[in-house]
Amino acid sequence: MASKTLAVIAGVGPGTGASIARRFAKAYPVVVLARTPESYDAVVKEITSNGGEAVGISTDVSDSNSVNSAFDQIEKKYPGSVLSAAIFNPGGGFVKKPFLELTEDDFSAGLNGQAKGAFNFAQRALPLLLKGKESSTHPPTLIFTGATASIKGSPQFASFAAAKFALRALSQSLAREFGPQGVHVSHTIIDGIIDIPRTKAWGSGVEDSKLSPEAIADSYWYLHTQPRTTFAFELDLRPYVEKW
Amino acid sequence: MASKTLAVIAGVGPGTGASIARRFAKAYPVVVLARTPESYDAVVKEITSNGGEAVGISTDVSDSNSVNSAFDQIEKKYPGSVLSAAIFNPGGGFVKKPFLELTEDDFSAGLNGQAKGAFNFAQRALPLLLKGKESSTHPPTLIFTGATASIKGSPQFASFAAAKFALRALSQSLAREFGPQGVHVSHTIIDGIIDIPRTKAWGSGVEDSKLSPEAIADSYWYLHTQPRTTFAFELDLRPYVEKW
Amino acid sequence: MASKTLAVIAGVGPGTGASIARRFAKAYPVVVLARTPESYDAVVKEITSNGGEAVGISTDVSDSNSVNSAFDQIEKKYPGSVLSAAIFNPGGGFVKKPFLELTEDDFSAGLNGQAKGAFNFAQRALPLLLKGKESSTHPPTLIFTGATASIKGSPQFASFAAAKFALRALSQSLAREFGPQGVHVSHTIIDGIIDIPRTKAWGSGVEDSKLSPEAIADSYWYLHTQPRTTFAFELDLRPYVEKW
Amino acid sequence: MASKTLAVIAGVGPGTGASIARRFAKAYPVVVLARTPESYDAVVKEITSNGGEAVGISTDVSDSNSVNSAFDQIEKKYPGSVLSAAIFNPGGGFVKKPFLELTEDDFSAGLNGQAKGAFNFAQRALPLLLKGKESSTHPPTLIFTGATASIKGSPQFASFAAAKFALRALSQSLAREFGPQGVHVSHTIIDGIIDIPRTKAWGSGVEDSKLSPEAIADSYWYLHTQPRTTFAFELDLRPYVEKW
Repeated sequence: MASKTLAVIAGVGPGTGASIARRFAKAYPVVVLARTPESYDAVVKEITSNGGEAVGISTDVSDSNSVNSAFDQIEKKYPGSVLSAAIFNPGGGFVKKPFLELTEDDFSAGLNGQAKGAFNFAQRALPLLLKGKESSTHPPTLIFTGATASIKGSPQFASFAAAKFALRALSQSLAREFGPQGVHVSHTIIDGIIDIPRTKAWGSGVEDSKLSPEAIADSYWYLHTQPRTTFAFELDLRPYVEKW
Repeated sequence: MASKTLAVIAGVGPGTGASIARRFAKAYPVVVLARTPESYDAVVKEITSNGGEAVGISTDVSDSNSVNSAFDQIEKKYPGSVLSAAIFNPGGGFVKKPFLELTEDDFSAGLNGQAKGAFNFAQRALPLLLKGKESSTHPPTLIFTGATASIKGSPQFASFAAAKFALRALSQSLAREFGPQGVHVSHTIIDGIIDIPRTKAWGSGVEDSKLSPEAIADSYWYLHTQPRTTFAFELDLRPYVEKW
Repeated sequence: MASKTLAVIAGVGPGTGASIARRFAKAYPVVVLARTPESYDAVVKEITSNGGEAVGISTDVSDSNSVNSAFDQIEKKYPGSVLSAAIFNPGGGFVKKPFLELTEDDFSAGLNGQAKGAFNFAQRALPLLLKGKESSTHPPTLIFTGATASIKGSPQFASFAAAKFALRALSQSLAREFGPQGVHVSHTIIDGIIDIPRTKAWGSGVEDSKLSPEAIADSYWYLHTQPRTTFAFELDLRPYVEKW
Repeated sequence: MASKTLAVIAGVGPGTGASIARRFAKAYPVVVLARTPESYDAVVKEITSNGGEAVGISTDVSDSNSVNSAFDQIEKKYPGSVLSAAIFNPGGGFVKKPFLELTEDDFSAGLNGQAKGAFNFAQRALPLLLKGKESSTHPPTLIFTGATASIKGSPQFASFAAAKFALRALSQSLAREFGPQGVHVSHTIIDGIIDIPRTKAWGSGVEDSKLSPEAIADSYWYLHTQPRTTFAFELDLRPYVEKW
C-alpha cells in the first residue's frame, strides 16, 4: 500500500473521540485507538461506509507495549506513512472521592491513563508528525484533551486533577520543544458536560447547555488548519450557560 | 435602508484590524472605527470595490462621546440594525520605559485606550449584540484583542500591562455575564510580532516567525462561528518559533 | 528633625490599613494616608499613645497632586528620610452592577482609585525605597493589596476586576524592575471577607470564617522581613472555610 | 513514651529539608524521612546535640509500603502522637532531556517521586494532622514544595513539569478539602537556584542570587503559624535578581 498521510486518534468511544475521527476522516485515513473494539467498531464502520478510510486498533495507552504494538501495526499496514494529526483524547482516571478513601490504585489510574498514556502516545506520534511536515497540507498537529481539572484541583478530585495537570504540563513542554520544529501542539480545556448518550440525565436541562462533540471536533480541526505563523496553544471550550 | 445585521470593528489600521474587517465583510456589512480616515479609508475602499459593504467612522474609543456619536451614526445609517459581531482591537497605550520615567499621561494613555475604550465600546455594542440573536446565523460575538502583556507584567511595561490586564478582566466579566444571555464574548492573546509593514525590520528574520494578520482574522471568524454549546473564551496565538 | 526610616501606608480605615499601621509602627515611624482625618485619626492617636510615632495626611491617591503634596509634607516633616516600607491598601472602586447599568464614572472610579492611585503612590515611594536600602534592617518593601477580583473577572464586577487586574499588572512589572535593584515588591490576594465592624453582619456566621486584619498585617510584616535571597511576590490569603 | 505533637519532614538532604527540620525542631520533635541515612544522619545529630529531638527513618516516598512502614515506626515510637506539621519536600524526578530521548523510566520517575510520593505521604499524614488540631498551638499544617516547573512546562522538562504540576493539583485539592476541616495545606513555588553545596558553581555569581534554605524554612514556619482565619495557600519564592 502506498505511503499515506494519516490521522491517529487515541480515545474513541461514543463521544468526542468519534466526532474527531469523523471530522478528520474527511481529509485523512484515520486510525482510532481504544481499549476494546466495542469502543471503535461503530465509528470505523460508519466512516468506511461513508467512503472514508478508518482502522481501529485495540490499545491500552497506559501500557507502552500496547502503544508500541499499535504504532507498529500502523507502520506495517501503511509502510512509510506519516502523520498529519495525532489526537490524545482518552477518558479514564476520573474518580471523585474523599481523599482518605482514595486508594493508591485510584490515584495511579489517573496518572497512568492520562500522563503516562500521553507520554507513550507522544513518543510514537511525534517522529511521524515530524516526518509529516513535507506531505501535510496543514502543519502536523498534536492535540491533547484537557478538562476543568486541568487548571483547578477541586476537593475530592485529587486523582483526576493530578492527572490532568500533568497532561497539561506535558502539552506545554512539547509545544515549546516541537513548535519550533514545525509541529503544532495544542491543549484544550473542555469545561462542562459533553452531550453524549451517557450524560443524557446529567445537567440542568437548559437547552444547549452541554458541549457538542461535533463542535469540539470542529475546534480540533480548526486548530489543525492554523498556519505555523499563528499557532494557538490553548483553547477553553464551555457551554454558554456554564458557570466558571 | 432596511435593517441589517452588521459587524463593527474598532481599531483598524494597516494590520489585524483591516484583515478582520475583510474577513467579516464576506458575511456582513462592516463598520470600521479608527481615529482618522487615513487608518480606515484603504480598507473601506478595498472592501467596497470587491463588492462588499463597508463604512468608516472616525472615532476615539477612549472618549465616550466619540463612541456614542459613532454608534449614533451607525443607527442612523442602518435604522433598526443589529450586530452579529463586535471586535475591539485598538492599539495604543504601548510604551516601554523605566517606571520612574513614565509620566502620568503615559500611564493613563494605556488605561484610557484599552480599558475605558473597551468599556465605552462594549456599552454600546452589547445592546445591539443582544438584539442580534434572532437574525444572526452565528451567536453574536464580542471579541477583545489582548497581548502577551495581558497575562505578564514585564519590567518597564507597567502602562501597557495594566491596560491589557484590565481589558482581560473586563472580557472575563462580560463573558460570564453575557454568555448565559447568548452573546459569545472572547479574548485573544496575541503573543508575538504581527507581520505588517511597520514591523518589517523587527524580529529574527526566520521565515514565518511573525503572526499573520489574515490568520488572526481567520481565528476571530472561527470564534464567531462556534455554536453556543461550545464557546471558547480565550485563545493564545503565537508564531511557531516564539519563545514563551 | 533627624532623618528617619519610615513606613508609609496608603488606605487606612478601621480595617486592614489600621492593623498594618499598628504592626509597622512597632518598628518605624508610620505615615498613614487616607481621604479624611476620620479615617486615620483613631489609629494615629492609638499608636502615639502607645509610644509609637504616627502621622496622618489627608490624601486622595487617585489625584497625583494630592499624592505629591502628601509626599512633600513627609519630606518636609522628615527631611532626608527614607522609606523601609510602603503599603498600598486603599479600598474603593468596588461596585457590583449589571454591566449595562454601570456608568462611565463607576468604571473610572475603580481604575482611578486602584491603578492610577497605585501609579501615583509608587512614583513617589520608589525613590525613597531605593534610598532606604542602606539604612533599612530589612530590604525596603512595596506591597500592594489585591483581592479575589485580581485574578477573576466575575459577572457584574467589571469595574472592580479591571481595577484589580491592572493593579496586579503594575505590581508584577515593578517587582521585575525593582527587585534586581533591591526593593521587594509584593502583591497579596485577599480572598474573603475581612472581619471589621462594617462586615459584622456578612458571611456565614461560622466561627473564624472571616480574615483577621491583624493576621493580614502579620503577613505583610513577614513579607517585609524576607531577605533578598528569598523574596515572595504573591501571597493569597483566605479563611479556612472559604470556597475557592 | 508520652504522646507528642510532632513534625514530619519528607525529603531531607543537605539543603532545604535540613533547614526545615532545624526550624521546626525548635518547636517540635521532628521525624525526617529520606532514602538513606547519609541524607538525614547529619541533621539528626545536629538537632539532637543542640538539645532538640529528631529521628530519621529511611523511606522511599514513591513506595507506599515504605511510607506505611515509616509511619508505623513513628506510631510505635510515639504512641498516640499527632502531627502539627507535615512537609513534603523530596527532590527527584528532575531530568532535562529532549523529549524523544526521554525513557519511560525517566518520565515515571518524576511522577512516582513527586505525585505518588505526595499521595502516599498525605494519606498517612492527614489523619495525624486532623488529630493534631486539639494539641497544636498553630493549625496543623501540610506543605508541599513546588518549583518553577509547577506552573510552567518548559522545553525538555516534560518529566519534571508533569510531576510538579501533578503535585500542585494534589495540593490544591487537599487545601480545598482539608482547609474547612482545620488543616492548613500550602504549596510553595521555589523559583531559582537554592544555595547549597551542590549548587556552589551554578548561577551568575551575583551576591545573594541564590535562595537561602534557612529563609525558605522561615517561610514554611511562617505559613505554619498563620491562624485559620487567614491561611495562605501559595507562596512563590525567588532571589531578588531572578528573571521570571
